[in-house]
Amino acid sequence: MYKLTEIEGGVCAANGFYADGVSAGLKADMAKDMAFIYSEKKCEIASIFTTNKMAAAPIRHCKAKGEFQTNFVLINSKNANAMTGNAGVEDINEILATLPANIENPVMSSTGVIGVRIPKDKIIAGAKLFDLTKKDADAAAQAIMTTDTFSKQIAYKIELEDGSSFHIGAMAKGAGMINPAMATMLCFITTDANIAKEEMQAALNKNVQTTFNAASVDGDTSTNDTVLLLSNAKSGAYHAEAFEKALHKIMLFLAREMVRDGEGATKLVTYNVSGAKSDAEAEIVAKALSNSLLVKTALYGQDPNWGRIASTVGASGAYAVEEKLTISFNDICVYKKGELFFDEAMEKKASKVMQLNTFTISCDLGIAEGKFTSFGCDLGYEYVKINADYRT
Amino acid sequence: MYKLTEIEGGVCAANGFYADGVSAGLKADMAKDMAFIYSEKKCEIASIFTTNKMAAAPIRHCKAKGEFQTNFVLINSKNANAMTGNAGVEDINEILATLPANIENPVMSSTGVIGVRIPKDKIIAGAKLFDLTKKDADAAAQAIMTTDTFSKQIAYKIELEDGSSFHIGAMAKGAGMINPAMATMLCFITTDANIAKEEMQAALNKNVQTTFNAASVDGDTSTNDTVLLLSNAKSGAYHAEAFEKALHKIMLFLAREMVRDGEGATKLVTYNVSGAKSDAEAEIVAKALSNSLLVKTALYGQDPNWGRIASTVGASGAYAVEEKLTISFNDICVYKKGELFFDEAMEKKASKVMQLNTFTISCDLGIAEGKFTSFGCDLGYEYVKINADYRT
Repeated sequence: MYKLTEIEGGVCAANGFYADGVSAGLKADMAKDMAFIYSEKKCEIASIFTTNKMAAAPIRHCKAKGEFQTNFVLINSKNANAMTGNAGVEDINEILATLPANIENPVMSSTGVIGVRIPKDKIIAGAKLFDLTKKDADAAAQAIMTTDTFSKQIAYKIELEDGSSFHIGAMAKGAGMINPAMATMLCFITTDANIAKEEMQAALNKNVQTTFNAASVDGDTSTNDTVLLLSNAKSGAYHAEAFEKALHKIMLFLAREMVRDGEGATKLVTYNVSGAKSDAEAEIVAKALSNSLLVKTALYGQDPNWGRIASTVGASGAYAVEEKLTISFNDICVYKKGELFFDEAMEKKASKVMQLNTFTISCDLGIAEGKFTSFGCDLGYEYVKINADYRT
Repeated sequence: MYKLTEIEGGVCAANGFYADGVSAGLKADMAKDMAFIYSEKKCEIASIFTTNKMAAAPIRHCKAKGEFQTNFVLINSKNANAMTGNAGVEDINEILATLPANIENPVMSSTGVIGVRIPKDKIIAGAKLFDLTKKDADAAAQAIMTTDTFSKQIAYKIELEDGSSFHIGAMAKGAGMINPAMATMLCFITTDANIAKEEMQAALNKNVQTTFNAASVDGDTSTNDTVLLLSNAKSGAYHAEAFEKALHKIMLFLAREMVRDGEGATKLVTYNVSGAKSDAEAEIVAKALSNSLLVKTALYGQDPNWGRIASTVGASGAYAVEEKLTISFNDICVYKKGELFFDEAMEKKASKVMQLNTFTISCDLGIAEGKFTSFGCDLGYEYVKINADYRT
């Protein structure tokens, strides 16, 4: 047995981890734009990076290291260091070479505009402001924000039966969860669990499928997406099932928070797809729904337009049959296996669900047992405003 | 040798074809909402229908006929007769049974709201207003519009060396070219060429790939998409290459017009993708570009944000390498094989291109010889307005 308790402290909740955010003048108004995560002990690292073929320089730099341990991650917002080629990687090496001697094998993570060389001198000057004894997870979480409207952090304490305990903490940024040119999804998770490197990577890989990879703001996969899990083993404690459970809670929470804070989003919608030919086909349908412009604009208009849901299911490519499909908005069933019963009274009930900030749209394909759950948001005027005006 | 001349007359340009539009009270303000195409002679038919698994009742009805000839197509807007099951098909049979005796084997085509039974009595009453001696292609083209802001027609006369000639005419509707719940792409092409049925279908299949299937307004595939080509062979004339060429011109024109009149669209952009590993990979990239929300909002903002183009190429799934990619806006090259030279002067030049209503974005992947051209539009406030408010 074990006990999970949500606690404060974000990436500093695990023993031996330090973090802070400072201003290097990359953002206007001296807002925080650089952060670090530092560990007293060198950490094992598990990582997941973007599948975008134009992967940014920090990702190329990190991947080139192969297997490695580190005690330091440097993060900046406002500039993605993407499409900057080998020069971008050299910039990172120059920046990291200026860090203090007790920092070993540091890596970098960037988010912001694509196609502009990183302002090396500002970053180097900014890093000199870092105080490695600080445990200000809030400041770090703020510094990595771009168009995010709130910072995203969470931490758990896991108490085991033998009286030992360990912690997992995390911070993330999103806005355009998957959003080239500016936002970029970044997530940093720290733990003092005494976990083997292979188990870290396995747990990360497994949980990313149902959390970050199930979330979409705009369907565009960034050049900079990064999830890093750092473990310094300082607690000496570990419990596989408890770790896995806490990690899933953390990643699911942050993935949902990212969508809730999606650019211009006013609604967080869960798409529960079941009854598909396979889990893979259910995933195709769930992602088609969370990415459909017509579904997203109907959400924004609070219009229980189930015809668009049905049409998107049909267009997704997955096997589906009109006479077997059932669609519900929360517990209000709006279409059932060929029966048309969506009258004015039903519409009123369904409209009430659509007015909520958070609700679930369920599609039972009625074919077999395949299921998948995805997370999406609406698309309104504010999304257009943010993305039409971004660079100017 | 042969001569192609663009002429007036739309679907009535070919000899022996008649058409008109009337109001059956489906649209407000007695706007035209029903149309017919009638041919003196029974026609061979070539067709292409939506790949959406929730194909609408008119498509199920038409497909169930197998091989057939007809002299009549009945078209209505405002109601898609989709997700209406077998009852929707029976409604069609009842409606078509009321048509005059000289009409043989008629088919129906519908566009509008999904999930509502078609107002059978209104449609039957509307069909009684048809005058089969009318040649009013304009009225027919107007009657099939939904959120379209202008009607779409074109026709060609093809004169052969031996003095004989034939005609091809067409009308189409789009708005959300591919837009469940309301718009639906429909296209009707008539010809008096003496063409064999197999050649008709082959020519239609070939040309749809580079025209309608290369166009996207919102990436949502409708339940009702239909392209019908009707030939009554009345001219007695035919020339394979000339027919093919005129058909391509007609389909390309209508596909581009649909995108230009996409819901809320202010720009028609051609994406010329070349240098890909294969034509199939070029198509993946070209369609990813025309469907990317971040590219579409940048177009609306007239922002030459080439980083979003690069990121979308990278995220598309096609093989691509940063150091081999070249991006141009019309003839302004903004990124070339790893070189960053996009300064303020360049931005000014590229911004001028972005202010045009129609321009080309070229992406040379620099890998091999694969190429594909797609057509897309921007996404602005008006798209959100149209689709958030649609059903209310």
